[in-house]
Amino acid sequence: MSLSLYDITVPVFIRAFANLSAILEKGRAFADENKIPHSELLEARLYPDMAPLTGQIQRASDSSKFVAVRVGQIDNVPMADTEASFDELQARIAATVALLKSIPADAMDGREEATVVLKAGGTERTFTARDYVLAFAIPNFFFHITTAYDILRHKGVPLGKLDYLGRS
Amino acid sequence: MSLSLYDITVPVFIRAFANLSAILEKGRAFADENKIPHSELLEARLYPDMAPLTGQIQRASDSSKFVAVRVGQIDNVPMADTEASFDELQARIAATVALLKSIPADAMDGREEATVVLKAGGTERTFTARDYVLAFAIPNFFFHITTAYDILRHKGVPLGKLDYLGRS
Repeated sequence: MSLSLYDITVPVFIRAFANLSAILEKGRAFADENKIPHSELLEARLYPDMAPLTGQIQRASDSSKFVAVRVGQIDNVPMADTEASFDELQARIAATVALLKSIPADAMDGREEATVVLKAGGTERTFTARDYVLAFAIPNFFFHITTAYDILRHKGVPLGKLDYLGRS
Repeated sequence: MSLSLYDITVPVFIRAFANLSAILEKGRAFADENKIPHSELLEARLYPDMAPLTGQIQRASDSSKFVAVRVGQIDNVPMADTEASFDELQARIAATVALLKSIPADAMDGREEATVVLKAGGTERTFTARDYVLAFAIPNFFFHITTAYDILRHKGVPLGKLDYLGRS
């Protein structure tokens, strides 16, 4: 009766992507109803040097893929970050979910103390897989899902907390 | 080498509150340097019907406390949601962290299948403790931490992802 690294990541990410997909559909519908160009939402950001909506989806995808690769030891499937429409963002989500679903539930078993090295900006940071998941990957993943929601809320899309959390 | 409900919640929440506390200090310093009234940041929100910065901190506190109460079976410590200054928000965070630190690491052992009932808006929702933590409490907690960060970024406070994730 305990939890594995898989339990606390892959199904959690798949669920959040289902919610995110529905949130994006509400964004698209809002734009169409109000005759707002889709690009106005897709390129919206909360501050000039923050990533726009498209970037938040791409980074949520990457955060979850990196867990699959670094902890689940599956091969990365590179994704080009060229999405520029709601359809393309939905396809990115679908491809990410397909990759997550391809991970066997036991692929992360016994990997809690495996070494994960992150390289960014010329520096390296070394984690155990367990710390990487709990202190980095999960918070980072929800950062991007939440910021996508926050951008759409900021632009007036009618969303509520249950759109983010899911209704069942 | 597996994870408990405690492992994936209490230390994760304590870490996020330490990061949040430092983020709020940067917000206060930014306001002082730029002669912006503190209330302009404390009452800032991303959309008129979203909670302001103060509310995001209060809800992050509650999300973590509810895990302590509903899963860790400790007595709730009611907090009045009256915080209206940076000092009061820091005190709220400190009180929440003190409560989290009071939970014995084994208080959630064997509670994975315990029933958690959420009542909101006249409806009830029943979870296992495990599903409540993974599908509700953790995503909800990071929603409010992220939205607090997003509000301050939106107001121009110079923050980066490492302020949110922590630097070590």
